[in-house]
Amino acid sequence: MERRVTLKKVSLKAIAQQLNVSVSTVSRALNGKPGVSKRLREQIIKVANDLGYTPDPLAVGLKRGTTKLIGILVPELKGDFFATIVESVERALYHLGYRLLLCPTEDDPKKEEDHLKILVNQRVDGILSAPANFRSNKSLYEAIINEHKIPVVFFDRLVEGVETDYVISDNEEGMRILLEYLISKGHRKIGFIHPLRGIYTSEIRLKTFLEYKDKIVFQEEWIKDGKSSEEDAKEAFTTIMRSKEKPTAIIVGSYHMTLGCLRAAKEMMLKIPEDISIVSFDDAPWNEIFEPPITCVSQDPREIGLIASTILLSRLKNKKMGESRIQTVLKVKFLERLSVAFIK
Amino acid sequence: MERRVTLKKVSLKAIAQQLNVSVSTVSRALNGKPGVSKRLREQIIKVANDLGYTPDPLAVGLKRGTTKLIGILVPELKGDFFATIVESVERALYHLGYRLLLCPTEDDPKKEEDHLKILVNQRVDGILSAPANFRSNKSLYEAIINEHKIPVVFFDRLVEGVETDYVISDNEEGMRILLEYLISKGHRKIGFIHPLRGIYTSEIRLKTFLEYKDKIVFQEEWIKDGKSSEEDAKEAFTTIMRSKEKPTAIIVGSYHMTLGCLRAAKEMMLKIPEDISIVSFDDAPWNEIFEPPITCVSQDPREIGLIASTILLSRLKNKKMGESRIQTVLKVKFLERLSVAFIK
Repeated sequence: MERRVTLKKVSLKAIAQQLNVSVSTVSRALNGKPGVSKRLREQIIKVANDLGYTPDPLAVGLKRGTTKLIGILVPELKGDFFATIVESVERALYHLGYRLLLCPTEDDPKKEEDHLKILVNQRVDGILSAPANFRSNKSLYEAIINEHKIPVVFFDRLVEGVETDYVISDNEEGMRILLEYLISKGHRKIGFIHPLRGIYTSEIRLKTFLEYKDKIVFQEEWIKDGKSSEEDAKEAFTTIMRSKEKPTAIIVGSYHMTLGCLRAAKEMMLKIPEDISIVSFDDAPWNEIFEPPITCVSQDPREIGLIASTILLSRLKNKKMGESRIQTVLKVKFLERLSVAFIK
Repeated sequence: MERRVTLKKVSLKAIAQQLNVSVSTVSRALNGKPGVSKRLREQIIKVANDLGYTPDPLAVGLKRGTTKLIGILVPELKGDFFATIVESVERALYHLGYRLLLCPTEDDPKKEEDHLKILVNQRVDGILSAPANFRSNKSLYEAIINEHKIPVVFFDRLVEGVETDYVISDNEEGMRILLEYLISKGHRKIGFIHPLRGIYTSEIRLKTFLEYKDKIVFQEEWIKDGKSSEEDAKEAFTTIMRSKEKPTAIIVGSYHMTLGCLRAAKEMMLKIPEDISIVSFDDAPWNEIFEPPITCVSQDPREIGLIASTILLSRLKNKKMGESRIQTVLKVKFLERLSVAFIK
């Protein structure tokens, strides 16, 4: 089962001694520099492999300006969406020798700022980020990209005005699909529990919802900030469903919040879709096994992770790609299930 | 909203120039070395702060042998359990300036080995690991602990025979609780879908299950390797429930696998608990909102993460703690819900 028994710090010196050559010859051979015969180079590489030599990335980082570290900023890992993106990124970068410095921001721009500064100091080769806020840390991101020349790829979310590569989902389309679907089922009284204000996806989804103001029965009290949290969404749902006039359908703006709403509905003994129709942004395991299964628009986190890594890798391989940005907007998928009633 | 507008690489030289002192004076002042007056030291620190100076962790790492990097090995991030541990660890270490190098192993000992070697080369200050296999990479872990003097704390799982700190849950007790509960409800025909063989928690849970061989109706065909995956568990569940003689209850050995079994039951139109009773190892969001909610033993991932970090931090602060190991076994919690029928 065990493949190699031990792991020693193998120095260039050890390799040099074994072959009775100088350390600088070994160094030249391993770094692909001239001045070493082909045969000797092969011998040196063989001995290095046999001894289990691996270059010291820290020293390499100082010398060549590459550390093989990639910083990744995500709001959280719970709830599978960002976890799946991180896993997908790791799989794409792993075999190329890159390692991930994980930076959970908890949607706090201050924590994001701290993380970004540490990443610069750790001399990461690149940064993948789902920014905490669509307006914060703009200049910091710009300084990292333009002054420190560290490529930054945004995913899932943007910071407005920062010119860089990104891969996001089509949030406007997602919201339109849900609204048009509810309207086609006869719903007009529609509520919306949105993610934490300030998050890019929350702002876009809310803006698109508000564009439908005149096509639906619009009530301020049916729009609540679920703060991207299960607990807050549960409370928001309960408040909405206790108001005098109730909506017939609620759009829930993220998967954690959907879980909170499903718990609230259970506690209030509200039947879905008889008492209230629910549709959700993003799919989650509980959407499908809940009784009834929940209709939603879903994004593909695996695809998002893969595309973000691919873009970053091209930047790393080709530093002279120039200013032309790769900006990808992915289509969302609509999954019709059984959580919406037909209203006459 | 923006706290600081830009992030420049501030050099010791820039600080020295501003105060008209030598670079070595600045260096001594900032590194707490003697030879600088108290007043000048304060001035230097003030200017350094004003300019936004932060020491270069790479250079610091080479000099002081500390990189402020902690490697963390987990099988996966999906499904909240390990994600919550990682989040909890990150919160505990963040304010002390440590950053996490994330190493998902996918329960593959080869990938684990690769990660461990890279971590040594990155000169991490410490390693937290949920090992991929209870027997693999034993000598590698031992070399890291004893030769490289990098502290390793295992969590959730162990490698047999590696002497180091750890925090795990009481898996024997968890299995006994589930079995005793099922027996008290009149069940004797009990199946077990266990996690991937070779994983520490799978081995312990299976061993404990087999200790009950004589107290239950024991059938080889009711014991299946769900390979810690939703899909494999779904298939295992389906196979068991299609066999001629069926068990009356199935113990599912992890949360992903429970989800697979719940999906399978739904597809087969099997009613829980009328047609089959299910209990699960570990809690998950779907356990509670499923109809009926699923009875389980649960561990507290937040607590596991916090304890693992605390142990690692004490090792880092006090390198002379010596050989006395901190080995913690946490109690599990039993959550009785509605997924088990009473059998006469």
